[in-house]
Amino acid sequence: MTIADRWLLPDGMDEVLPPQASRMEELRRALLDLYHRWGYDQVMPPPVEFLDSLLTGTGTELDLQTFKLTDQMTGRMMGVSADVTPQVARMDAHSLKRQGPVRLCYCTTVLRAKADPHQGGRSPVQVGLELFGHAGLEADIEILRLALTSLQVAGAGEIHLALGHIGIYRSLVEAAELSAEQEKAVFEALELKSPGELAARVEESVSDPAMAAMLCALGELHGGPEVLEQAREAFAEAPQAVGAALDQLRALHAGVVAEHPDVALYFDLAELRGYQYHTGMMFAAHVPGYSQALAKGGRYDDTGRAFGRARPATGFSLELKLLANLVPSEPPHDGIWAPAEGEGLAEAITALREQGERVVQALPGQRTGPQEHRCRRHLVPADGGWQVAPLAAASDQA
Amino acid sequence: MTIADRWLLPDGMDEVLPPQASRMEELRRALLDLYHRWGYDQVMPPPVEFLDSLLTGTGTELDLQTFKLTDQMTGRMMGVSADVTPQVARMDAHSLKRQGPVRLCYCTTVLRAKADPHQGGRSPVQVGLELFGHAGLEADIEILRLALTSLQVAGAGEIHLALGHIGIYRSLVEAAELSAEQEKAVFEALELKSPGELAARVEESVSDPAMAAMLCALGELHGGPEVLEQAREAFAEAPQAVGAALDQLRALHAGVVAEHPDVALYFDLAELRGYQYHTGMMFAAHVPGYSQALAKGGRYDDTGRAFGRARPATGFSLELKLLANLVPSEPPHDGIWAPAEGEGLAEAITALREQGERVVQALPGQRTGPQEHRCRRHLVPADGGWQVAPLAAASDQA
Repeated sequence: MTIADRWLLPDGMDEVLPPQASRMEELRRALLDLYHRWGYDQVMPPPVEFLDSLLTGTGTELDLQTFKLTDQMTGRMMGVSADVTPQVARMDAHSLKRQGPVRLCYCTTVLRAKADPHQGGRSPVQVGLELFGHAGLEADIEILRLALTSLQVAGAGEIHLALGHIGIYRSLVEAAELSAEQEKAVFEALELKSPGELAARVEESVSDPAMAAMLCALGELHGGPEVLEQAREAFAEAPQAVGAALDQLRALHAGVVAEHPDVALYFDLAELRGYQYHTGMMFAAHVPGYSQALAKGGRYDDTGRAFGRARPATGFSLELKLLANLVPSEPPHDGIWAPAEGEGLAEAITALREQGERVVQALPGQRTGPQEHRCRRHLVPADGGWQVAPLAAASDQA
Repeated sequence: MTIADRWLLPDGMDEVLPPQASRMEELRRALLDLYHRWGYDQVMPPPVEFLDSLLTGTGTELDLQTFKLTDQMTGRMMGVSADVTPQVARMDAHSLKRQGPVRLCYCTTVLRAKADPHQGGRSPVQVGLELFGHAGLEADIEILRLALTSLQVAGAGEIHLALGHIGIYRSLVEAAELSAEQEKAVFEALELKSPGELAARVEESVSDPAMAAMLCALGELHGGPEVLEQAREAFAEAPQAVGAALDQLRALHAGVVAEHPDVALYFDLAELRGYQYHTGMMFAAHVPGYSQALAKGGRYDDTGRAFGRARPATGFSLELKLLANLVPSEPPHDGIWAPAEGEGLAEAITALREQGERVVQALPGQRTGPQEHRCRRHLVPADGGWQVAPLAAASDQA
């Protein structure tokens, strides 16, 4: 194997160098601090679980994304976490067992078996939060507000928020009494965003003309708040649950606009991709210049049922590496350069570091200087002690 | 599968609940801030690498500890990082390619295939730093000082520092011209800390009585600074490298004592366990009540050679979960409880959060109260607005 081979990293398994790693740390802290101020408690889910537990109720897609490992100690199959949300639902349902609303947040690296072009790599750093134990719209609005505020904290300017509700699609499909195979065909046509394909597949499966019209209408219902009015007309004869879902979307819209009037809102009632365990409202926030969603979430009630406790749940997650790229990171050149040795130097350096200063001490024989170590000041002897003095900048000397 | 089965986590793959996760976050920040003030730049190594790259020059023990995965995209074998240090050496040698001393630090979860009773679990959070590009004792002393300061930041009181030097053992073994098999026998006897066993194995392998005496002496040389004097006598006829290593240990001792006079120092010239790629001084810091070392490190020059660049290197690592347990963590009950709704309430809450306050807002119908959410104050209407007032403590009401 050549040296060049050894240097190669697997696709999507990235290393993060300075200054980007510091920028990510800074953003991690800002987000976790934000969530703390809203009453969210931090948790650390296990990086590996038994596969049965990890994939309970999460769908095929997550299974395909999960790296499998054999536990040498038990012979059982384990999986590396590819999505923190179901794990946190288990922690709420089983480990914490608290009454009433529970607010939890996290920031952790997950692994994905396949590189997802929409999620940047196979080692995303997932940061997010979950609110358990409250089924009301107030919880969903809190989640939406925190998702938008998170993007603002990361430096996002223009934000586009797409809102949907899985209950509309589910209720229509149920009322149409589709077989599993027929439903799959309709689902795929909706994913393709192709009205012609959708119409063809609906025609094959649905005999009732009113029901067929409603399923076909679903594929067209995306756009501004006027979509909600169009949907109300199109779904006038749909099951009551569809009307209730539209009412929820209207209330969420009002709740978001009140606090984030600058966010561009649109609705997409047929957007179903990547929502694997959701049961209610779903959202994705985009920023111009990025094809992938920067924040994604929604309501996913009752995931904890498999762990003994069905609980309402709503939340979102972000990908920290992507988010840290929103604004360019240039570390400050605020260090103080210190010589390798000198009388009373150690005490002077210790005192400066205790004040929070970054002091880079030269090592004997070192050839690189303050510039390479982001220092524009240095320690110089003065009055029998040491004092901090500015260094002449390279441009000043020119 | 029963619900109880689903709850079970694999041995050593732990979840961290509140308040312990917050305590770990607090300590993570304190340590990374400490390293920043000393001029260390943060990096994030990749969580998974191709196996060839990950295990180059790291020894059999790390291979056995590494979880193996097949890369679906290339068919090549990958490994999940079980030890960050060799990865950071690669980043220094290949990715950064900086001249002169380079200081790097990190904090990341690694995975281990086998639960190590001395390292608490299979998902340790490894935090540490590495100093590349300087072969002098000044670099080693900096590392030792930062390891000890890290433990103090974590709340360690009494610290015991064990110092050794792999060069002593290596030079003696080389001079004794042992075969690989003979060396293995001697190494195992040293690990067993059994003078009788060591004497028997040395007798089998070494014909020169002076050399045999020196190898047997190695097993006895552990204790206070007087050990260095005893070693100098015992190794008077040893290769020059042994004397040089003893000189280094004396200088390190002086360097540590000058800055950390309260640390109990002892020497163990035959301690070789768990140092897989080290080439010079090695150390382990212990705290009473913990059988495992809380900080461990040493010099490991030239690890980067396989990646095109041999560089001097010295560093240490800590395990964050273990460290966070040194002092009991009790989160402050400093939150402010807010009602679910009220005129002008949203603005009042936002203002408080912007001041850094933790405000937990009730959700409609919520039955748990401020006590369950660590609030001893609440928001009450006052003068047409809202103000923060203390809540009567449960004990006050009794």
